[in-house]
Amino acid sequence: MPHISLPENLPGIRGPMAFRPETATPLNELADVLLRGPSTLSRGERELIATVVSSQNDCRYCQTIHGAIAAHHLGGNEALVIQVKADSERAAISDKLKALLVIAGKTAEGGKRVTAEDVERARQQGATDLEIHDTVLIAALFCMCNRYVDGLATWAPDDPAFYRARAALVAEHGYASATLQPATAHVQG
Amino acid sequence: MPHISLPENLPGIRGPMAFRPETATPLNELADVLLRGPSTLSRGERELIATVVSSQNDCRYCQTIHGAIAAHHLGGNEALVIQVKADSERAAISDKLKALLVIAGKTAEGGKRVTAEDVERARQQGATDLEIHDTVLIAALFCMCNRYVDGLATWAPDDPAFYRARAALVAEHGYASATLQPATAHVQG
Repeated sequence: MPHISLPENLPGIRGPMAFRPETATPLNELADVLLRGPSTLSRGERELIATVVSSQNDCRYCQTIHGAIAAHHLGGNEALVIQVKADSERAAISDKLKALLVIAGKTAEGGKRVTAEDVERARQQGATDLEIHDTVLIAALFCMCNRYVDGLATWAPDDPAFYRARAALVAEHGYASATLQPATAHVQG
Repeated sequence: MPHISLPENLPGIRGPMAFRPETATPLNELADVLLRGPSTLSRGERELIATVVSSQNDCRYCQTIHGAIAAHHLGGNEALVIQVKADSERAAISDKLKALLVIAGKTAEGGKRVTAEDVERARQQGATDLEIHDTVLIAALFCMCNRYVDGLATWAPDDPAFYRARAALVAEHGYASATLQPATAHVQG
């Protein structure tokens, strides 16, 4: 049961976002710019960074919904998302993304854990300053979202079909717009 | 030296914010709503939550600037800020704020660390759902900002006078507006 009274039919971050729309608006705008805005990192790659950090922080709602959105952008490849979460170094992703995931993971542990060597490795694989910046900020953003979701003890659906349906909605409309959409009948039923 | 090329005269979060204004805009808006918007928690109390979390996360820039802003809102009482950072349970603050600081500290450790007992203690001291929500989100926000600042290895000034001057500017104009202000002559000199 959530620590405060939240709308009952909205899982994960959506409950507190409906409870406090004043903070939800800039939070969704930040997510839209970072995860969906113009970037040399694909939407799938950025969602994988969000997923890996949320998995490291043990946030079930965030790692499941962002894993589903990542898979959606990656042509439905759910196996790849599972592989990246389990062992990104051996996953079928670019060497650049592997290096960026190391930076993301260390950012989640604590900013000072990121070393010049980690950044140099990413550069050697072609990462730009902007890609390194965005990787750090995406990781930091999910350190916020994961704590927001779990610090208020929100609930998360069990059914993978919920996350797939929601992922399709977010992939099509974006975070700000999808937040305004009602929960799917599937979840409410 | 920062891990990426940032404007040299801007310390802490201001370097990456100038580097990436598209993400700085919603980030500052979120800070303005949470730390300065209408609330039954005073601006000083909210800045104390930000300061304690940033201290716990060992982020020198954030704990110093938000400590200075807290002191500014608390009539210049820098000793109180030091006391709260060192031992909030014995500090000269309300029992409600003491309970909220426990929730904030646990949120920073990891959202699941916050217990129903922690929340009940805050309620016993008069905390509302909105105050508990905002405490969790302020703590989470600074888990993001601290990692953003340190994950990119930004620099922080040593001179306390810098932070006092900057605090007065932020206290008067807010985060979004203060970000557009140039660094003070003091820092550049």
